[in-house]
Amino acid sequence: MRTGQTHLFVPGPTNIPERVRQAMNVPMQDMRAPDFGELTLDLFDGLKRVLRTERARVFMFPGSGTGAWEAAITNTLDPGDRVLMARHGQFSTLWAQMAERLGLEVEVVDAPWGAGVPVKEFARRLGADREGRIKAVFVTHNETATGVTSDVAAVRRALDECFHDALLFVDGVSSIGSIDFRMDDWGVDLAVTGSQKGLMLPAGLGILGVSEKAMAASETATMRRAYFEFADMVKMNAGGYFPYTPPTQLFHGLRASLDLIFEEGLDAVIARHRRLAEGVRRGVQAMGLELVAEHPSLYSNTVSAIRVPPEIDAREVIGAAYSRYNTSFGSGLARLDGRVFRIGHLGDLNEGMCLTALSVAEMALAEAGMQVDFGRGPAAAMSWFTGAAEAPELRVAAE
Amino acid sequence: MRTGQTHLFVPGPTNIPERVRQAMNVPMQDMRAPDFGELTLDLFDGLKRVLRTERARVFMFPGSGTGAWEAAITNTLDPGDRVLMARHGQFSTLWAQMAERLGLEVEVVDAPWGAGVPVKEFARRLGADREGRIKAVFVTHNETATGVTSDVAAVRRALDECFHDALLFVDGVSSIGSIDFRMDDWGVDLAVTGSQKGLMLPAGLGILGVSEKAMAASETATMRRAYFEFADMVKMNAGGYFPYTPPTQLFHGLRASLDLIFEEGLDAVIARHRRLAEGVRRGVQAMGLELVAEHPSLYSNTVSAIRVPPEIDAREVIGAAYSRYNTSFGSGLARLDGRVFRIGHLGDLNEGMCLTALSVAEMALAEAGMQVDFGRGPAAAMSWFTGAAEAPELRVAAE
Amino acid sequence: MRTGQTHLFVPGPTNIPERVRQAMNVPMQDMRAPDFGELTLDLFDGLKRVLRTERARVFMFPGSGTGAWEAAITNTLDPGDRVLMARHGQFSTLWAQMAERLGLEVEVVDAPWGAGVPVKEFARRLGADREGRIKAVFVTHNETATGVTSDVAAVRRALDECFHDALLFVDGVSSIGSIDFRMDDWGVDLAVTGSQKGLMLPAGLGILGVSEKAMAASETATMRRAYFEFADMVKMNAGGYFPYTPPTQLFHGLRASLDLIFEEGLDAVIARHRRLAEGVRRGVQAMGLELVAEHPSLYSNTVSAIRVPPEIDAREVIGAAYSRYNTSFGSGLARLDGRVFRIGHLGDLNEGMCLTALSVAEMALAEAGMQVDFGRGPAAAMSWFTGAAEAPELRVAAE
Amino acid sequence: MRTGQTHLFVPGPTNIPERVRQAMNVPMQDMRAPDFGELTLDLFDGLKRVLRTERARVFMFPGSGTGAWEAAITNTLDPGDRVLMARHGQFSTLWAQMAERLGLEVEVVDAPWGAGVPVKEFARRLGADREGRIKAVFVTHNETATGVTSDVAAVRRALDECFHDALLFVDGVSSIGSIDFRMDDWGVDLAVTGSQKGLMLPAGLGILGVSEKAMAASETATMRRAYFEFADMVKMNAGGYFPYTPPTQLFHGLRASLDLIFEEGLDAVIARHRRLAEGVRRGVQAMGLELVAEHPSLYSNTVSAIRVPPEIDAREVIGAAYSRYNTSFGSGLARLDGRVFRIGHLGDLNEGMCLTALSVAEMALAEAGMQVDFGRGPAAAMSWFTGAAEAPELRVAAE
Repeated sequence: MRTGQTHLFVPGPTNIPERVRQAMNVPMQDMRAPDFGELTLDLFDGLKRVLRTERARVFMFPGSGTGAWEAAITNTLDPGDRVLMARHGQFSTLWAQMAERLGLEVEVVDAPWGAGVPVKEFARRLGADREGRIKAVFVTHNETATGVTSDVAAVRRALDECFHDALLFVDGVSSIGSIDFRMDDWGVDLAVTGSQKGLMLPAGLGILGVSEKAMAASETATMRRAYFEFADMVKMNAGGYFPYTPPTQLFHGLRASLDLIFEEGLDAVIARHRRLAEGVRRGVQAMGLELVAEHPSLYSNTVSAIRVPPEIDAREVIGAAYSRYNTSFGSGLARLDGRVFRIGHLGDLNEGMCLTALSVAEMALAEAGMQVDFGRGPAAAMSWFTGAAEAPELRVAAE
Repeated sequence: MRTGQTHLFVPGPTNIPERVRQAMNVPMQDMRAPDFGELTLDLFDGLKRVLRTERARVFMFPGSGTGAWEAAITNTLDPGDRVLMARHGQFSTLWAQMAERLGLEVEVVDAPWGAGVPVKEFARRLGADREGRIKAVFVTHNETATGVTSDVAAVRRALDECFHDALLFVDGVSSIGSIDFRMDDWGVDLAVTGSQKGLMLPAGLGILGVSEKAMAASETATMRRAYFEFADMVKMNAGGYFPYTPPTQLFHGLRASLDLIFEEGLDAVIARHRRLAEGVRRGVQAMGLELVAEHPSLYSNTVSAIRVPPEIDAREVIGAAYSRYNTSFGSGLARLDGRVFRIGHLGDLNEGMCLTALSVAEMALAEAGMQVDFGRGPAAAMSWFTGAAEAPELRVAAE
Repeated sequence: MRTGQTHLFVPGPTNIPERVRQAMNVPMQDMRAPDFGELTLDLFDGLKRVLRTERARVFMFPGSGTGAWEAAITNTLDPGDRVLMARHGQFSTLWAQMAERLGLEVEVVDAPWGAGVPVKEFARRLGADREGRIKAVFVTHNETATGVTSDVAAVRRALDECFHDALLFVDGVSSIGSIDFRMDDWGVDLAVTGSQKGLMLPAGLGILGVSEKAMAASETATMRRAYFEFADMVKMNAGGYFPYTPPTQLFHGLRASLDLIFEEGLDAVIARHRRLAEGVRRGVQAMGLELVAEHPSLYSNTVSAIRVPPEIDAREVIGAAYSRYNTSFGSGLARLDGRVFRIGHLGDLNEGMCLTALSVAEMALAEAGMQVDFGRGPAAAMSWFTGAAEAPELRVAAE
Repeated sequence: MRTGQTHLFVPGPTNIPERVRQAMNVPMQDMRAPDFGELTLDLFDGLKRVLRTERARVFMFPGSGTGAWEAAITNTLDPGDRVLMARHGQFSTLWAQMAERLGLEVEVVDAPWGAGVPVKEFARRLGADREGRIKAVFVTHNETATGVTSDVAAVRRALDECFHDALLFVDGVSSIGSIDFRMDDWGVDLAVTGSQKGLMLPAGLGILGVSEKAMAASETATMRRAYFEFADMVKMNAGGYFPYTPPTQLFHGLRASLDLIFEEGLDAVIARHRRLAEGVRRGVQAMGLELVAEHPSLYSNTVSAIRVPPEIDAREVIGAAYSRYNTSFGSGLARLDGRVFRIGHLGDLNEGMCLTALSVAEMALAEAGMQVDFGRGPAAAMSWFTGAAEAPELRVAAE
């Protein structure tokens, strides 16, 4: 029988802070009441602050981040439009699959799982696209499957350098609110996220930032859509209402989570993620394990995908952690299944929790058959957390 | 300042029972844990019992009932398919609008707001459709805007009598779980509902029952879809998982609400709705007001749409109830705006609550300028609830 | 099976406001943490505002109001001390019984159940007590069993007029926070209340206001005490701590309930109780029933004790309300058992709830065999609530 | 700003399991309802199972464990009765102080803080007490201040061996439900506990097991008492009611916590405490620190009191843990202040949490100036938890 706190280290849905849980524990209310907008209108503004945008419009669709992926596509593109996408992990692969299903002509660049978005190849193709046939470029800012953070600003530069007019789509589901994300500075046109990662809520809201340029595109885009129609939302959101029943409890939770983020300070939240992630990585390295991410400049501050030694089955590591230690790690997805386990270190987190993750990881690895020198992982993280270890030069450069 | 219990009588989202609230107040958990299916798999079975189906498959999409509308259409029809729909209230009108947006050729039958689905006209058109050009017939079982319950079984008979093969779509958002609904008996192919009405949960789940025939149609249907794709759900649901992050808290709530329904007994739940609704209607009639529903055989047991006298503005009634008495009534939608207020009487409800609704309605009507003889409404309901009034013959026949 | 909201009209424990429930739903915390006082110290100040005292000290004992009764006695009196008390209801009777058990020499004045504290008789006895043998006078401000509010200020005047030095003990369990109570103005020395009435919390805190004079008495009082020792509390409370583990969740709830009270305004809270109580009383009278309270000047604004006709058993009324209508009324206590039911109308309450109480009362009375003309009770209350009825002259004078 | 889970390792109040939190989050209810006993009566039985008694009666007083101390004394003893007590930690000292305040003649045996109850000295004095002047012997089963578990069975044997008739009082506040406790087998007459330790609830219930012999004594005991009077409770508890407003929410929580205990199995709960405590102790020893408990046979399985090196201030350790790592350790009480910090390891706990405690302890010790070789503490615990370390022979013998 399970006892004690659940140790949740999947890279989403993430731990819900107590204040958010409190806030959501409310009776039902009238979503058409005259003062309903007092609750909702501020949420749009708060999300704009999280996206670091002043010019974009924000949408909250009842659904998941996947729904927001679809909303982004169907509202701004035409059937048959050519789009440029990379596949370098499970989530970028799924987004490309969705684009194909929705009738886009997807120009796919495959990169190793562990690499970032292939900026140079994107730049090359955009430069070669003299007629502007590429209507949109898609970037998975943080590939949750591999623990890789890509350089969105560099993709923007690539577009600008060849004066390319394509829309820039960014999947920020596991980065926004946790890793530096700058919608306006980076000229992101469609920024996708969900409620269940850095926003520390249950799943249920697909969130979308849409630039003025993308809003303009939505007026002429001919792809079929109904549930995810921007225009319906625009009309109702003006007063803080929604075209269909919204998840009111999540709005109360979002109010609380935005308050938490702004009280801590968005920059401080991001710095905390960097600090805690570095502790986890040092612990992992001290255990003698390697990350999937190919280079330190790609390390994700929200999730670490960790390769187990070849003779070990990562599923056994995850299974032991779950069944014996009430601890959930993320599994290796698709081609990484069995080779990788993932530690999500995003959202409502602190040093003690990261040390729990590393300690349980050591025990679970031992139970899966690895020779583990207990304590090395936590020790490396403790040195970092207490300031006894030196800060890494590289990360500063990378961010 | 508002004090005391909120009196929520909108026809959804409905009051959340305490046990459901308790059940949802849980920390986040791993939606890919090996035992996650223990939570979810039973929910599909429970929903089948609520739909009264043994043969259909059930889907739970993160989203609203509107999303389930879309899922039903996009998974089973082809672009340009002809479908037969009626418009006799705001929700049937919106569904027809969605069908058009998604590229269907909608054959619309307009009926008065207050009428039911025009079964005879449907029968006539289906009979005339010798080539089977009509691919689907849509029925809004309970038109929430007008408080009208239509006769789904009669539409099924109309289809059967001319051996018509069209799929039967039914919007049961405000009926399923509250008003008798029989998916198998009535040969419903796509039954749509949401979490926030008879299931007494927050919004956030679009629920769909899909017949074997409709599942077969989904394998060849060519309409574009991604988020709402049945096949992805089928694959993942087998083990109790989902293709994207599901709203786990709602699943816990659904477990509790299904338990409540089955402990009371689905038949008893339906009988209770009938009894409480009759009390409300008697109260309304004792106040000298009329329902929008044209005939007692159409009266909805989940919502009553009530016409105010011509000299009264229903918005003022609703406003007074809300601002002075912490009570939410539903407003008149679209063409009924200002002429109608609605009392939702579905979900977690009892006699005392219905009497509160009637009492506050009397006070709010008085404050909006109507000459009210206080106490008549509640008195009529009390007579009914205590058994001092006779049961209506008509309802028995109608149901 | 019970469905819908529970209609709770016992005169305590009272309905818990949602914000209070939210506030209490927190994980456990360290009651010796350096910042624990940030939570607790303000609570003492808030309670002083509720007691309308600037000079008294406030104690919060883990326990019930009965515990605070005991704390008041054991900390300020010596064994064998003579005290003056009245018995005019169940709670004043129990307090006198406690005083005897604790070794006091209780001079009891018996008055009819339905009368207030016999001020004139108290005055007479105090005037006659030339040697000052009476060490304390006890007043039950609001006798919850009979729905009678007594005149504490008049008892103070009686003391002052004969320059009597006795301590003035007041049981304000069902008045403080709901009915005007003025500790400093009235020279109350020991003001007793609990968390579960006007403070709208679960039971668990016995609350005590102690005047400077009573604090001085506590330094020499020789009655045995340990758990309820003021000195231990004084010492620890200075930093916001407690001599033994306090009910932290209740402190969070108290923070929320004090916020609610001060946001509404204490005067407004009291006015609201008066207004709602008047509605209930008018309803009761319109039903043809009488209150236990002997005179309108004694009517309690927190609870109405209602006599049923002689041929009716009040227990059946209460039973029918509970079993059929999910409604709890208070029962007749001790000698009033079977003759009386009580409607508590205090705490988190509004007009709709009062109308529910009256409506259910009519149905329950009918089911218990009374000939009820349905709707009269609610109608009278509605007239009052909507301002269609005239304000009673008497109440203004009385308060 | 604090983020992430709070790491609570004070030896009470302990972490509240989620199911208990859920259970307590209920609206208020009528504590005199006819079915109220359905909730409460089973609780008495459940507590008897936890106390391992079939013959004793159980009381639940609104209050803290300190209140239950008082209830035990005042209901069974006469003023001036001689009682035998030991002082070997802060809580045994406080109990002795209470006994004196309440007018007992306390024969105190002082023992080192870190020693157990001086069984031999008790035996000697009991043997010498030929006239049976000692009316009661008090044992602090688990001295929370020092992390020492004493041998209650040995005290019983000492009583039996000289055929002494004194009542046996046991403070089991921090043992019952976590450390083996056998009321009937050990002939305990008054077993005291509270809700906020092994029962995993908020503070608010003082719980008492009372043997038949002690119940008989209560009928003639002459000590003054009112709030804590057994007889009032006995009378009302028969139907599941209480003489004053009980903390209903805690009853719901207790239902849940008893369910958790019995689902896991009381023996398994005790074994888990032993296993987790052993891990913590091994970790502490691997850090080079010593426990206050003088001998392994005295080690408490619910709390470890840990001496810091002489040059370190334990308050700084506790302060660093709290302010930097959101972690609460217990402080050194009274004479141990600054010399000791305590890790509570009782209630709802698992391996990961113990490792968090050890990891944070290492960091906090380092920040307080100790030279710490990071990772040693967690490593020793991991070896134990994974079975890589050998089981200690001694513990088996001791328990």
